[in-house]
Amino acid sequence: MIALGIDPGTRALGWGVVAQSGNRLRHVAHGVIRPGGKDSLSARLAHIAEALEGVLERHRPSLASVETLFFHKDPQAAAKLGHARGVVLLCLERASIPLHEHAPARVKLTLTGHGQAEKRQVGMMVRAVLGLEELPPADASDALALAITELRLGPRTTALGAAQSSRRRSLPPHVQDAIDRARARGATAR
Amino acid sequence: MIALGIDPGTRALGWGVVAQSGNRLRHVAHGVIRPGGKDSLSARLAHIAEALEGVLERHRPSLASVETLFFHKDPQAAAKLGHARGVVLLCLERASIPLHEHAPARVKLTLTGHGQAEKRQVGMMVRAVLGLEELPPADASDALALAITELRLGPRTTALGAAQSSRRRSLPPHVQDAIDRARARGATAR
Repeated sequence: MIALGIDPGTRALGWGVVAQSGNRLRHVAHGVIRPGGKDSLSARLAHIAEALEGVLERHRPSLASVETLFFHKDPQAAAKLGHARGVVLLCLERASIPLHEHAPARVKLTLTGHGQAEKRQVGMMVRAVLGLEELPPADASDALALAITELRLGPRTTALGAAQSSRRRSLPPHVQDAIDRARARGATAR
Repeated sequence: MIALGIDPGTRALGWGVVAQSGNRLRHVAHGVIRPGGKDSLSARLAHIAEALEGVLERHRPSLASVETLFFHKDPQAAAKLGHARGVVLLCLERASIPLHEHAPARVKLTLTGHGQAEKRQVGMMVRAVLGLEELPPADASDALALAITELRLGPRTTALGAAQSSRRRSLPPHVQDAIDRARARGATAR
C-alpha cells in the first residue's frame, strides 16, 4: 500500500509518499513543487498539475489524502488555496486515485497523540516514525504526515471529537513507540 | 475573433461563445455545465474539465475571460468557487488560450452603461446585443456578458474607477444603440 499526502498551495505544494508493508511504514519520497513566483496564477496551476502528474506516474500511489478544506478567515486566501486544491483533486480523479480528507487535528493526533500539537512537533514525529536523517521542508513534512495518517487511519469519516476521545485512550502502537522514543531523546521538549 | 466567457461554479458552470467580425458581434453558442449533484467534489471537477475541454475543441476561442476573483464574504464558499476556477484556469492554460479577468462592475458597465446594474438588466442587454430570441439561463448569460466585454474592451487593466468615469461619458456605440433600443421597448424599466 502506497499513500501520497498532499499539502496544496499556489506558491508551494508539498507532497510525500509513504509505503506500508504489514505494520511497517517506509519513507519513499517527498518534495515541494514550487511554480515560478512571477508566473501568472494559470501558469502556476499548470506547473503544479504537470509536476504532480509526474509524481503520480513515478510513485503510483494506491491512495491519496489532503487536509479537509481549511477554514481560512481570509476569503481571498481561501479562494487562492481553492485553486490549487481544485487542480490537485482533478489530477487525482483523472488518475483514478481514491482521495480522502483528514482534519488537521486528526493528523496531529495521529502523529503526536495531541490534536493541538505544534507544527514542529508533527515534523519531528514524521522524522521519527519514518526514520529520516533530516527534517523535511515544512510543506513536505505536512504531506508526509497526511500520508502516514491515511495509512494508519484509513478513510474514517467519524466525527473528530468522538474519534479523538477514543483514540486518545489507545494510540496506535507505532505512534506510542515513536512518542516514547522521541521523548526519550527530548525531541518533543519545547 | 472568438471569445469565450466563463462563469465558474462547482454546481453549475456557465459558458458563452461570441464572435466578432469588424464591429459586429455574433452569438455562437452558450451552455451550462452541470455536474451530478450527488457526485464528489473531485468527480464534479473532472466532469467540468472534460465538458470545458469539449467546448474549447468545438469552438476554438482565441481568447477567454472570467470574472476577477469574487470577494466572497464566506471563506468556505470562496474556497469552493476557487476549486472550479482553478480547473478552468488550468484547462485554458493547457489549451494555450489567453485569459483575461474583468471585474463584475466593468461587465455591467460595458453591457448596460451602469456599473451597478441588476443581473436582469445585464441579461436583457446580452439578449439585445446578440439578438437572441430568448433570455439565456442566468449562468450562461453572465458568461456571454463576459465574452462581449472581452471583445469590446480587451484586456484593459486600468483601475475600474477611472475607466468608469471616462466610459460613462462615451459608451461604445453598440452599447448605446442597444440601450436606446431596449429603452424604447421598455426593457430596462423596473
